[in-house]
Amino acid sequence: MPSVSPYDNMTPVVRAAYRARAAAADLAPLPRAVKDDALLAIADALEVRTREIVEANAEDVAAAREAGTAESVVDRLTLTPERVRAIAADVREVVVLPDPVGEVVRGSTLPNGLDLRQVRVPLGVVGIIYEARPNVTVDAAALCLKSGNAVLLRGSSSAHRSNTALVRVLRDAVGGAGLPADAIQLVPGENRESVRELMRARGLVDVLIPRGGASLIRTVVEGSTVPVIETGTGNCHVYVDAEADLDMAVDILVNSKAQRPSVCNAAETLLVHQDIADAFVPRALDALAEAGVTVHADQRLLPYAEGTKATVVEATVEDWETEYLSYDIAAGIVDSLEQAVEHIRLWSSGHTEAIVTTSQRTARRFTQLVDSTTVAVNASTRFTDGSQFGFGAEIGISTQKLHARGPMGLPELTSTKYILTGDGHTRG
Amino acid sequence: MPSVSPYDNMTPVVRAAYRARAAAADLAPLPRAVKDDALLAIADALEVRTREIVEANAEDVAAAREAGTAESVVDRLTLTPERVRAIAADVREVVVLPDPVGEVVRGSTLPNGLDLRQVRVPLGVVGIIYEARPNVTVDAAALCLKSGNAVLLRGSSSAHRSNTALVRVLRDAVGGAGLPADAIQLVPGENRESVRELMRARGLVDVLIPRGGASLIRTVVEGSTVPVIETGTGNCHVYVDAEADLDMAVDILVNSKAQRPSVCNAAETLLVHQDIADAFVPRALDALAEAGVTVHADQRLLPYAEGTKATVVEATVEDWETEYLSYDIAAGIVDSLEQAVEHIRLWSSGHTEAIVTTSQRTARRFTQLVDSTTVAVNASTRFTDGSQFGFGAEIGISTQKLHARGPMGLPELTSTKYILTGDGHTRG
Repeated sequence: MPSVSPYDNMTPVVRAAYRARAAAADLAPLPRAVKDDALLAIADALEVRTREIVEANAEDVAAAREAGTAESVVDRLTLTPERVRAIAADVREVVVLPDPVGEVVRGSTLPNGLDLRQVRVPLGVVGIIYEARPNVTVDAAALCLKSGNAVLLRGSSSAHRSNTALVRVLRDAVGGAGLPADAIQLVPGENRESVRELMRARGLVDVLIPRGGASLIRTVVEGSTVPVIETGTGNCHVYVDAEADLDMAVDILVNSKAQRPSVCNAAETLLVHQDIADAFVPRALDALAEAGVTVHADQRLLPYAEGTKATVVEATVEDWETEYLSYDIAAGIVDSLEQAVEHIRLWSSGHTEAIVTTSQRTARRFTQLVDSTTVAVNASTRFTDGSQFGFGAEIGISTQKLHARGPMGLPELTSTKYILTGDGHTRG
Repeated sequence: MPSVSPYDNMTPVVRAAYRARAAAADLAPLPRAVKDDALLAIADALEVRTREIVEANAEDVAAAREAGTAESVVDRLTLTPERVRAIAADVREVVVLPDPVGEVVRGSTLPNGLDLRQVRVPLGVVGIIYEARPNVTVDAAALCLKSGNAVLLRGSSSAHRSNTALVRVLRDAVGGAGLPADAIQLVPGENRESVRELMRARGLVDVLIPRGGASLIRTVVEGSTVPVIETGTGNCHVYVDAEADLDMAVDILVNSKAQRPSVCNAAETLLVHQDIADAFVPRALDALAEAGVTVHADQRLLPYAEGTKATVVEATVEDWETEYLSYDIAAGIVDSLEQAVEHIRLWSSGHTEAIVTTSQRTARRFTQLVDSTTVAVNASTRFTDGSQFGFGAEIGISTQKLHARGPMGLPELTSTKYILTGDGHTRG
């Protein structure tokens, strides 16, 4: 057979993708036990080679400090021996998760006697583009390996030495376990051109998952010909209904906003039904003030600030669309459930919206009308999370509707294929 | 609340998408019975207003003939009263299919007592870009309506009068049934700019499904910021193993290639294991000749043509990647199952590949190693089809791995959302 390859004259990024593709073909049919052994080898290697990892990381940390990086970012970049041990423990948790590959999603015998089965298969090559946290390097590699995928990792240049050390350890462990080391690769090149090449590697890379700030995600979504799963932007709402339990509403509001304001499932806007505003808003404002939250209030809510401890500023239109990720919340009063739903439809990023109500009918209507990855009834927005949902680790939270929506676990890293078995069946 | 809309200064296409979005929000919570009544109203209206449809179509057909359009294309464009009745009957078949919306995909009670359910919801606004066949207009509208989606239809200008008449009938029927007529819209404008606007309407349109030739699909895949489901390209393979039943192999080969060569699940390449070549290839060449098929043979297969009735030409590299859609097939001899798999990985479009073998072990290995939407064992490639698979109608056959793979029925027109129900749960 002619053996001309369509992959001649490859750039380093395309070559990496091509090697990942070959590795993915080898990984796809592997049974769970083989993949789990490789994961255990990874966890062991991370512990044995902690010093090598921490030393490389120290160089990244020193360079970041020298460049005047904010201390919160430096903290996220830093790996200590304890943190490396925690990362190894996370890998061991992936070992105990069920393998999604091979799961029969549906199956039947067709009227003509053909047996039809739809089974889960790996996606193939998964590209992850992410920012400073080096723990993502290991988490993503472990989840991709468990689901039979090869992974191309494109971390930020600020973590390049850390990621290089980590990937060296991962590849050695995977190779030592008899699997292709090319199943885990750092994308070569630290410049933007290499990201662009990755985004254009349609046919070689099966999906790109950007993890990080809104601008990174927008760049990938708009510039990529490889299919992208959009993650992470969370403009989440808490709606306090006319028939809410007020104590519960205060608890859920404060927890949604202030328990960890820097994450995507933190609440960014409070909507209050007008019939309960007098009773609820002053209490809510005091509780938010206590938690250190500044309230960006609309015209109707603003007057309630008088006599409370609240720090209040007047809201502008921009506030409705802002994902603060800080101790700030937009707040307004609505006439009805329908007006709350309309506001959410217009401004929400579709991540998570919560309602607080004692009315079964209102709860049902809210969950029917609101179209977000997660609709919470009498629960904090903060629960939208792979480990909270019982999926084990998560590779990100999809805010799009195609393929995966909400926290993505191992099954979301798979596709399916149909297997059709007959005895010489032909179509008439 | 401030009521500034982000949709000011809209072009006609964006306005259509915005109206579709509003209609989609109304459709999403509708129960099945309401949607089925609207579908029945559509079927009735198509029958009652057949003359209006056929007359508009006659103008398109006359214009196409005048423009010198190939008769096969004119035939696909033509609507007769019988064909309109058949289209109405197809709509009634959608009525009897189960509604995917509301299906609980998974659910559990979390350790903290929260109830978690993942339920199917409509995608929202589905855009279909398609070529000459006006029956797609009705099929797509019916499937989208049943699954609670609004649809934006962008047919070819050669079918514009037919599509305008059909969509008028559909909208009247839907409106008469009390549902928003804007759930079904033709994309305004017949020029390419309107297609481009549709492809850029990210955030308004949830998915684009191109149906038609390879060049249309490539244009949409490469130019769209709206997520796309790639459909239809089928470079399908039949592999005849060393341990094949020869009668079965001939039947499956001829059926896969020649039963209907113009469709995407027809076979385009034959691969034969060397150990069975002497016994099989002459018979296969005679059978293909009988069916009117020209064989594009590689160097090893070419000599077998002597003494057969075959029309044979020498294959070039291009033949391995060609989707002929005609009475042509590429053919080659391979050393092993592994070489067949390698050839398929390199050249297949990942639609459907068939193996003919009596060996359970070989069948298992082929289905493990080949990664296509459908892998057929001892069955024709022609079975990859929504109605053959028992899904009722299909909106297309996805050849990508994300979201949907293979024939797409109603569930593939949905996303999911999580509903989380608690008693005031907060995260610690």
